[in-house]
Amino acid sequence: MTNTTWTRRHILSLADFTGVEYDTVLQTAASFREVLSRRVKKVPTLQGQVVCNLFFESSTRTRSSFELAAKRLSADTLNFTPSTSSLTKGETILDTAKTYLAMGADIMVIRHREAGVPQAVATEMNRLGVRVGVLNAGDGQHEHPSQALLDLFTICSLLDPKNPRLELLAGKKVAIVGDILHSRVARSNIWSITATGAELHLAGPPTLLPKLFADYGTGRAGKLFLHWEIEPALADADLVMTLRLQKERMSQHLLPSLREYHQRYGITRSLLKLCKPDVKVLHPGPVNRGVEISSDLMDDSQFSLISQQVTSGVAVRMALLYLMGSGKT
Amino acid sequence: MTNTTWTRRHILSLADFTGVEYDTVLQTAASFREVLSRRVKKVPTLQGQVVCNLFFESSTRTRSSFELAAKRLSADTLNFTPSTSSLTKGETILDTAKTYLAMGADIMVIRHREAGVPQAVATEMNRLGVRVGVLNAGDGQHEHPSQALLDLFTICSLLDPKNPRLELLAGKKVAIVGDILHSRVARSNIWSITATGAELHLAGPPTLLPKLFADYGTGRAGKLFLHWEIEPALADADLVMTLRLQKERMSQHLLPSLREYHQRYGITRSLLKLCKPDVKVLHPGPVNRGVEISSDLMDDSQFSLISQQVTSGVAVRMALLYLMGSGKT
Amino acid sequence: MTNTTWTRRHILSLADFTGVEYDTVLQTAASFREVLSRRVKKVPTLQGQVVCNLFFESSTRTRSSFELAAKRLSADTLNFTPSTSSLTKGETILDTAKTYLAMGADIMVIRHREAGVPQAVATEMNRLGVRVGVLNAGDGQHEHPSQALLDLFTICSLLDPKNPRLELLAGKKVAIVGDILHSRVARSNIWSITATGAELHLAGPPTLLPKLFADYGTGRAGKLFLHWEIEPALADADLVMTLRLQKERMSQHLLPSLREYHQRYGITRSLLKLCKPDVKVLHPGPVNRGVEISSDLMDDSQFSLISQQVTSGVAVRMALLYLMGSGKT
Repeated sequence: MTNTTWTRRHILSLADFTGVEYDTVLQTAASFREVLSRRVKKVPTLQGQVVCNLFFESSTRTRSSFELAAKRLSADTLNFTPSTSSLTKGETILDTAKTYLAMGADIMVIRHREAGVPQAVATEMNRLGVRVGVLNAGDGQHEHPSQALLDLFTICSLLDPKNPRLELLAGKKVAIVGDILHSRVARSNIWSITATGAELHLAGPPTLLPKLFADYGTGRAGKLFLHWEIEPALADADLVMTLRLQKERMSQHLLPSLREYHQRYGITRSLLKLCKPDVKVLHPGPVNRGVEISSDLMDDSQFSLISQQVTSGVAVRMALLYLMGSGKT
Repeated sequence: MTNTTWTRRHILSLADFTGVEYDTVLQTAASFREVLSRRVKKVPTLQGQVVCNLFFESSTRTRSSFELAAKRLSADTLNFTPSTSSLTKGETILDTAKTYLAMGADIMVIRHREAGVPQAVATEMNRLGVRVGVLNAGDGQHEHPSQALLDLFTICSLLDPKNPRLELLAGKKVAIVGDILHSRVARSNIWSITATGAELHLAGPPTLLPKLFADYGTGRAGKLFLHWEIEPALADADLVMTLRLQKERMSQHLLPSLREYHQRYGITRSLLKLCKPDVKVLHPGPVNRGVEISSDLMDDSQFSLISQQVTSGVAVRMALLYLMGSGKT
Repeated sequence: MTNTTWTRRHILSLADFTGVEYDTVLQTAASFREVLSRRVKKVPTLQGQVVCNLFFESSTRTRSSFELAAKRLSADTLNFTPSTSSLTKGETILDTAKTYLAMGADIMVIRHREAGVPQAVATEMNRLGVRVGVLNAGDGQHEHPSQALLDLFTICSLLDPKNPRLELLAGKKVAIVGDILHSRVARSNIWSITATGAELHLAGPPTLLPKLFADYGTGRAGKLFLHWEIEPALADADLVMTLRLQKERMSQHLLPSLREYHQRYGITRSLLKLCKPDVKVLHPGPVNRGVEISSDLMDDSQFSLISQQVTSGVAVRMALLYLMGSGKT
C-alpha cells in the first residue's frame, strides 16, 4: 500500500478536511478492514515505530481501539495514563509531550479534558521542526475527529462496502440528536456530514442546542438545520445519530430529569417510524441504556450500527496512523 | 501441535470437565513447559489474535500470568482495568464485553467480584453466534478454573514430569485446609481433585466449612470428607493445599484472631509430621506468612510447591488459550 | 554485537563501577543509538526474554523509557504498578519478586520508595541461585544508576559522538546544584563523575548539602568540592547539573520559599556567564520551571541538554538490559 497524496501531519480537527482527504481515509480504512478479516490480522507497516497514547482523560474504548490499531500495524505502543503520571509532580503537558518526543515517539495520540491541548502540542512540535504527528483523540468539548471518521466509514460502508466514499451521502438526511452543546463527537460529525452534501438536522433541548450552531453550516456542501423538537429532525431521515448524555447535565439544571429527557429526545422504536424504513441508528458509546436510546433498540441489529462503529474504529484508526506515518522516509 | 478433540469454547467451571479434557490440558501444558525451557520462550501459535484481559477486580499475579501466556503465544493483548474504565460512565459489563468483541477480541479472560459474570458474558457471546471464547479468571466465590488446573498440573508433573495425567492421583490423599466457604480456588479444586479418584479431605473451622460442602462429593470418582479439626485431614496426606485467609473474616466475626487461626489451622513443620514423609504443600498465593502457613515452611523447597505453581500457571494458561483458540479456522 | 567481558549480573549502584564497565556501557549505548536512528528502530537481541518493570513508586518517564528500551530489544514486558498490586493483600516485596521470577522473568527493573529494596531482591535472587538480573531504577534517596549513566553518556557523546568514553571528562569541571541531600540522582552522579577524573563541585543550601558529602570524594579519581553558595561552583564550569526540588521540602522547613530558592540556587542565563562559554546544563526531569532552572533557559538548545538526556535514556537502558541479558546461554 502506498500513499502519495497525504500531506496532513496532524489530525486535530475536521473543520478544514478536504473531500480528497475524507475519501483517502475511507479507502485506506476499507483496505485495512480487509486485513482484519484475515486470520492473522496484522501488517508490518509501522514496525519499529512508536505510537504513544497520551490519555490525560481516562478512556476504555478509544484507548483500546488506538492501541489495537497500532499493534496491528506492528508499531510499539506506550500508554501514558494520569495515575502513573508525573503531572502530579507539576510537569506541564508540553514538557510531557516533549519527553515522549525525545524518547522517540513517532505519533502521539492525545486525549485531554481541555479543548486545544492536542493543537498546542502539535504547534510545539512544528515549532521544534520535528516530524512527529499528533492525533486528537478527544479534546474537551471541541472535536473527536477519529470518532466522526469512523461514523462516516460505517455509514459509507453500509451504502457501498467495497468502495466507501463521500459522495454516497449526497442527498441523504442525517439527524444528530441530544446534547449537541457539550459533545465533541457532534462537532466533528457536523464537519464531516456537512462536507458530504447530506442534509444535517440537529435536534435537542434549547439548553443543549443553542442557536449559534446554525453558523456551523455556513459555506458547507450540505445544509444544516436546527430543531428543538425531535420529530422534524427524524422525518424521513436515512440515519440517526444519538449522543451520550452526561448525567451531570441534570445537576447543572440543563435538564429536568433523565425520564423526561428520554420521553422527549430518546430514540425509540416508535419514533423511528418517522424515518425512512431502512433507517440506521448510531451512538458513539458508551450508551446510557434507556436514556438516549431505548435498550431493546440498541441491541436490534436491524437498526443499530453501534457494534459496526466499534469495528470500524479499529480499521479507521489503522488508516489514520498509517497515513500519518507514511510520509516518513 | 494440533488438537482435534477439544470442543469446549468457554472455560468457566470445572464442575463438568471430563477426564479427557483434564488430560488434554495436562499434556498440552507439558508441551508448552518444554517451550518455556528454551532460550526463546515463544511460539507463533496465536499470532494476530487478540486476548483481552478484562479484570474488573484487580489482580497482580493472575493478570500477569495470562498476559505473559498470551504474549508467549504471540497474541496481541489488551488490558482492561477498572481505573481506566467506562464503567464509571455507567456502561454495563455485557456492553463492555461486546465493545471488545466488536474490536476483534478472540478470547476474553474475565475476572469479576461477582459470581457468574464470565458465564453471563459467555452466554451472550453464544446468543450472538460469535466464535469468541470466554475464560473465567475468578468470579466471586464461585470458581477459578485455571488456578485448579495449574494446581493439578503441578501435582501430576511431580509424579510424572514427562506425562502428567489424571490417573496418577488415584488413591492419593489430598487435604485442602482453611477458608473453604469463601474460596473460589477451593471450589474449583474440589471438582478437579474429586475427578481424579483421589480422596479429598477438607478441613477448616465450622464457620468457614459448612456441612453442605459434603454435597460436592456426590457422584464424583474420588471420595470427599469434611473435618473441623486439621489433624485427621493431614494424617497420611500426600498433598496439602492451604488457602489464603482474607483478613476481613475477623471483622465479620467468623474467626476469633489470626493468632488462634494459625494455631489451629496454620500449616507448620510439626503438623506435616502427620502426613506422608514426602508430602508437598500448595498455596494459591499471595500468602499471609505466619497465618495460613508458617513463614519458614513456605520457603522450604523440600515441602513447598508454591514457586512451581506460579511457573505451572504460565504453561497451563498457554495451554488453555491455545485450546480455546485452536478451533478457529 | 557480542560482549565477552561484562560480568555484573545486577546493576544496583555505581559506587563500585569500574572504568571498564563505564566504557562498556558508553560504547554499547553508542551502538544502540545508531539502531535508534534507523527507520526500524528494533533489534531481536532479547527476543523471548521477559523484562518486568516493578515500579512500586509511580513514574512516567523512567518506566516508559525502560519499557521502550525493552521493546526495542524485542523483549516481552510486564508492568507491575501499585494500583493493580497484591501488596494491598499484604504480600511482601520479596514474595512479589519471587512470583515474577517463577513466571519466567529474566530481568527485573525495580523502583521503590525505600533505599535498598532492589539490593534486597538481588540478594534473594543470588541466594536462590537463579540467573535473573536486577536493575535499580531508583531506590529512595539512595541511587538511580541508569540516570547517572545516561547523564554520562549525554556528556561524553557531546565531546566525542562516535566514541564516548570516560577519559573525555578528565580535567573538566562539573557542578551539581540543588537538593543534594534527598537526591538519588545526585548520589549516583557523584560516583560516576568522580570516576572520570573530572572535578566535581556540589552546591546547595546547608540544609540540603550537609558536610558529610565530602566523604564521597575519598579515594576517587576526581576531586570533590562542597559549596553553600552557587557562584564558586559555577565559575568556569564545563557542565552544570541542576536537580529537581521536591516542593515538600518547604513544609519540612528546609527552605524558606521557592522564590528565595530560585534567587539563590536557580540556574539562570546570567548565572551561566560565570561558566565556560560553551557550558551545558542538565536536569533529570521533570522540571519545576522557574524553580531550579529558569523556564527560558530550559528551552534554549544552546545550553540545555534535557532533551538529549531523555533520548540517551533509551539507548543507555537498551545497553544495560543487553549487557545484563548477554551473559545468558
